[in-house]
Amino acid sequence: MGQTHTIRMRLSRQPVEIVVGSGHLNQLGSRLRRMALGTHPILLSNPNILRRHGKAIQKALRRVGGPVATLTVADTEQSKSLPSLSRLLSALAKLDGPGKRPFLVLAGGGVVGDLGGVAAGLYKRGIPYVQLPTTLLAQVDSAIGGKTAVDLPQGKNLVGLIVQPRLIFVESKFLETLPERQFRSGLAEVAKGGIIRDAALFKALEKSSTQQLRKGADRLSWALYRAMRVKAAVVEQDEFETKGIRTILNLGHTFGHALETASGYRRAYTHGEAVAVGIRVAADMSKSLGLISACSADRIRSLLRHLGLPVTFRGVRLADITRAMSHDKKWFTGRNRWVLPTGIGRCTVKENIPAHVITKAIRGAWEG
Amino acid sequence: MGQTHTIRMRLSRQPVEIVVGSGHLNQLGSRLRRMALGTHPILLSNPNILRRHGKAIQKALRRVGGPVATLTVADTEQSKSLPSLSRLLSALAKLDGPGKRPFLVLAGGGVVGDLGGVAAGLYKRGIPYVQLPTTLLAQVDSAIGGKTAVDLPQGKNLVGLIVQPRLIFVESKFLETLPERQFRSGLAEVAKGGIIRDAALFKALEKSSTQQLRKGADRLSWALYRAMRVKAAVVEQDEFETKGIRTILNLGHTFGHALETASGYRRAYTHGEAVAVGIRVAADMSKSLGLISACSADRIRSLLRHLGLPVTFRGVRLADITRAMSHDKKWFTGRNRWVLPTGIGRCTVKENIPAHVITKAIRGAWEG
Repeated sequence: MGQTHTIRMRLSRQPVEIVVGSGHLNQLGSRLRRMALGTHPILLSNPNILRRHGKAIQKALRRVGGPVATLTVADTEQSKSLPSLSRLLSALAKLDGPGKRPFLVLAGGGVVGDLGGVAAGLYKRGIPYVQLPTTLLAQVDSAIGGKTAVDLPQGKNLVGLIVQPRLIFVESKFLETLPERQFRSGLAEVAKGGIIRDAALFKALEKSSTQQLRKGADRLSWALYRAMRVKAAVVEQDEFETKGIRTILNLGHTFGHALETASGYRRAYTHGEAVAVGIRVAADMSKSLGLISACSADRIRSLLRHLGLPVTFRGVRLADITRAMSHDKKWFTGRNRWVLPTGIGRCTVKENIPAHVITKAIRGAWEG
Repeated sequence: MGQTHTIRMRLSRQPVEIVVGSGHLNQLGSRLRRMALGTHPILLSNPNILRRHGKAIQKALRRVGGPVATLTVADTEQSKSLPSLSRLLSALAKLDGPGKRPFLVLAGGGVVGDLGGVAAGLYKRGIPYVQLPTTLLAQVDSAIGGKTAVDLPQGKNLVGLIVQPRLIFVESKFLETLPERQFRSGLAEVAKGGIIRDAALFKALEKSSTQQLRKGADRLSWALYRAMRVKAAVVEQDEFETKGIRTILNLGHTFGHALETASGYRRAYTHGEAVAVGIRVAADMSKSLGLISACSADRIRSLLRHLGLPVTFRGVRLADITRAMSHDKKWFTGRNRWVLPTGIGRCTVKENIPAHVITKAIRGAWEG
């Protein structure tokens, strides 16, 4: 077992513990027992994770004392639906009973974390839950902050709530079996953390190759920890996304979401890849507006390339990108709002940026 | 228009405005416009309320500026279900669109308030909502405190959240068409407020007949206001029901729920009637334990009778009451927990009360 990093988030109702490490899954049970979250752990996961890690996770959960129940959902967007939420809530009610205090352990990526988080927030008006994220993207991003949601036919993530887990337990060894492309995509969110708030993380990433991060457990744990620390600090300042502070976590996302939408169902770009192109576009806009030095903007673009991420895009019409951006919920009526890097580890939020600045930056990243 | 009373609850995220009055429904629109809750009011109500008050409510809501959408649900417990919640969430998504800021106005009793509250809490991770309660029980009790829920086949109120409305607008004229028995049942919760925390309310109720309350708009508004003020103050101190303070709102409910359950589907007792018998039982227990004077316990029982509420029960086996109580969630493992009046306007919470004290008090209220 390598070094373990911990973060304690102070939030409105209860603190959230974050533990990051490599090969420390056997510590989960004793930690849960100390935290006394409940008597009956209910593991929610997907078939792939259960096949690879189910026994180890169940063994850890048995340390809590009571029996361990396991529920499975398919790892597809279809699982993030109201029918699937209804089934999960009924399953919780069936596992519950007099004298029991059930709590949920969500082992998976964004699908399990989002669906399970809504269920934990709603069952009996809220039972404790633990995030045990198994993808890089979930570890550095979606497992932190309490945003949970399922989809409606009318749109993604339209039904949900902000409800914090009691513990976020990050085991970097889960990433060993992650496909290379998914791993690199997750690094876009790690890099984002460095760009917006952590120059030391940025510099460490400049000095590491993707291979070194994949193989070097301690190096990876440290990078995860630093990126999570950035997100945790931002969420602490703006838990319910009412103060505009959480906006900076959207660096690269205004363009990134538009690229994902415009490239449609072909899935030409993963979320992380689209965000990487979006970060490059934001850096170029910032340079045009004189908010960042050419040198820093170049370093940002170079880091993304160094991590094996795209900084250009193709196969999409510019008009489709523009249309998709105008539907983004972060584009308020008539205004656009962008997170722009102002240096390494610094950023700002700007509104009403002239259209020609946006267009020029997007065109600059476009390969036709 | 008579006198209007206002209460401002200070809670964790945003304050809640409470306005109580008679014949002031025409003030709702301008108040909502001032509060700037959104651009598109969506009225959720039941057919009965819409037939009687729909036009007046819609007229008030048109003052907000945008068009007023109206959604209807049946006023039955079946509406408090996940399928009905799904339909409501989809309806909200269909009414929503770019640039719109919808908010919900819930005009009805507990069913509309509970179902609509869950939907408001979940749609887009929370949109503002207004409680416009139309029954006495909803006005003095369920509309305040943010507890919302729907049922599962496994049990009532198993799925929900604590999410506060932005405004609770109480129009006592809605009660004019309320059936006599429902009105009297609601008075049990008004009396409860006086017993646990407001001696002045208690004394005012002693001096009013049910008829005077039904016909005297100002007298009724004042009593509603005082009872709501008690609940509002308790909720302010314990918003998420984590500190045990909200427990005192359960005076009469441990026995009351058991009586409702034991008398089953025959609906021999309304919620308020069952609570009234429960308050009498609690007062007798308190007297046995030497926590309240015989004189005060008698005054409590007399007030309930004076309001036309039962203080005895029949047609139920005592064993069924005991069994129902042992399933109550407020009965922790091996312990029982009771709210006991200690005077007029005062109460306490006691655990581990000897079984013979409980049995004696219940037997005393039993007519076989």
